Amino acid sequence: MSLLEQEIQEQPAAVRRFLDAAAQTELPQLVPPVWVAARGTSDNAGRYLQYLAGLRRGTAVGLATSSTIARAGRSLGYDGTVLGISQSGQSPDIVAVLADARRRGVLTVAVTNDPASPLAASADATLELHAGPERSVAATKTYTTSLAAAAVLVAAAGDDATGDRDEELLAALGAVPALMEQVLGSDEGLAAAADLLAAAPTCVVTGRGVGFATAHEVALKLTELTGSTALPLSAADLLHGPIAAVGPRTPLVVVQPAGEDLGTGEVLESALRRGAPVIALGAGDVPDGVVRVPVPQPPLPELAPFLDVLPGQRLALVVAQRRGVDVDQPFALSKVTLTS
Amino acid sequence: MSLLEQEIQEQPAAVRRFLDAAAQTELPQLVPPVWVAARGTSDNAGRYLQYLAGLRRGTAVGLATSSTIARAGRSLGYDGTVLGISQSGQSPDIVAVLADARRRGVLTVAVTNDPASPLAASADATLELHAGPERSVAATKTYTTSLAAAAVLVAAAGDDATGDRDEELLAALGAVPALMEQVLGSDEGLAAAADLLAAAPTCVVTGRGVGFATAHEVALKLTELTGSTALPLSAADLLHGPIAAVGPRTPLVVVQPAGEDLGTGEVLESALRRGAPVIALGAGDVPDGVVRVPVPQPPLPELAPFLDVLPGQRLALVVAQRRGVDVDQPFALSKVTLTS
Repeated sequence: MSLLEQEIQEQPAAVRRFLDAAAQTELPQLVPPVWVAARGTSDNAGRYLQYLAGLRRGTAVGLATSSTIARAGRSLGYDGTVLGISQSGQSPDIVAVLADARRRGVLTVAVTNDPASPLAASADATLELHAGPERSVAATKTYTTSLAAAAVLVAAAGDDATGDRDEELLAALGAVPALMEQVLGSDEGLAAAADLLAAAPTCVVTGRGVGFATAHEVALKLTELTGSTALPLSAADLLHGPIAAVGPRTPLVVVQPAGEDLGTGEVLESALRRGAPVIALGAGDVPDGVVRVPVPQPPLPELAPFLDVLPGQRLALVVAQRRGVDVDQPFALSKVTLTS
Repeated sequence: MSLLEQEIQEQPAAVRRFLDAAAQTELPQLVPPVWVAARGTSDNAGRYLQYLAGLRRGTAVGLATSSTIARAGRSLGYDGTVLGISQSGQSPDIVAVLADARRRGVLTVAVTNDPASPLAASADATLELHAGPERSVAATKTYTTSLAAAAVLVAAAGDDATGDRDEELLAALGAVPALMEQVLGSDEGLAAAADLLAAAPTCVVTGRGVGFATAHEVALKLTELTGSTALPLSAADLLHGPIAAVGPRTPLVVVQPAGEDLGTGEVLESALRRGAPVIALGAGDVPDGVVRVPVPQPPLPELAPFLDVLPGQRLALVVAQRRGVDVDQPFALSKVTLTS
């Protein structure tokens, strides 16, 4: 079994371990607005924080433009909290953003798998992911533990009006690892979806709200593992023009949680009319003709990203294997990229 | 001549008209941090503002998560300034973000081509684009005039330390329309670059710093006009994994301004090693084997996006024409998409 496959399967245990550790930790209180410095998979966890903090707390979260600090040497006036997310905690550009913010007296928080990393050293507070060593080049368990870190930080932040913690979110989080196990125990829809993706040189992945983070992360896994490009777009941006590229040779993957569809339903209908193969990841309903990779419904709709991303990771794995890619060494990539 | 082609050519005049009008206008003073609410092309102008405001003023700029307000009905704690950018000024989700911010007493600014639009009505101040009617489905002149709006707003904002306007930026902006005319008067490299893109079912577009906005906008034009997907990624994110998808069948388009390359040089070398066709847009130097679509050097490096996007727009047009797409009616898209 590949390292990637092992680590995909380890995710429920990793999230459980993180939640147990976080329950024993005094969590930093995010001061709004929050600015996230991250890259790749960690940036997608930042996108989840954007929507989760907005939906649960009304907190404004922006993504930092790291190169303005790390490459151009400009000190940036981020106020509130600067949150760095990095599996290795090594990325010089992310460290530079935190160091700059800390010099300016802003609260800095590191979310990392390595509490002895430079990122942790440059932060006022560190939240350790407890994902265990991640040896696969493509990050999976540090993504879902980073989602969990985002969720506990949002839950711990006092409500603007009442100052209360978000106990509903914390309680619901406890149910997530078992649901993740359930998703990873089912193969329903995976082979059919892999057939569609393996036949196409490119695809589009869409989602909205918290599903926007899932769309980005699934697209990233597909792009870095299968050798085909996957273009992530919000359902709204997709309808504004890029839907033109969706058609018989370009499948659409829709992140479709249960309940309010945030516009993904319209995109899905439009893709079907255009003759595109359509795959839906999530607990939501879809029309006939869509290949559905179902997951159970989470206790809160905002927790769907923990579940919906799992079939996306597995799809990337299966499509890569069918193409003969060594998923633990896809195209000679290395694990830590020291971009600055 | 298609409407799209006409409007691409009208851009220097449109930017000149906008700058003349802005010089006669009392400009709103952006209060930091700034949050941009926009979609598609306008969002890409927002990305330019992120980097430009950071580089010139150290101002923090975030992109708003419009669906949390418009779809989920959550009021969001954006402070500072909320800036809405929309050609039509009609998008209900962008209007909702401004209306919410205004209710909360935050400065709201509309950048729009229609000063009688709902967006303008919900803002404290409006900056009119003066682009003239844009009849092509794919936005071009409202993109470059929106870049100009971003630039004059950054220039007008008093420096944190001195309170002074950025006269250097304002003076340099005056030289932009003539340089744009020069770019649009040259066909160098275009046909060779179009050959590479027309032969490929997908491509990756990369840039960094202010070039990140250009990469996003060029990718959007390629995706909505040619029927192929184009995946925009920062040079740093690309090296973290997705470079795996770049190869003989997946060309790389690099936005390569003159001077400090912000990591695009490394990406470019890596793509060549992988056997990918590589196209460079901009005034920067590139190694042998890269198809270069050159542009003149702007008076300030931060103004390169006004010039580098033009060959990208034209490339999308040429590739679309070679594929027999009616660029004024690509795949039956409509001009105003009322996403909410």
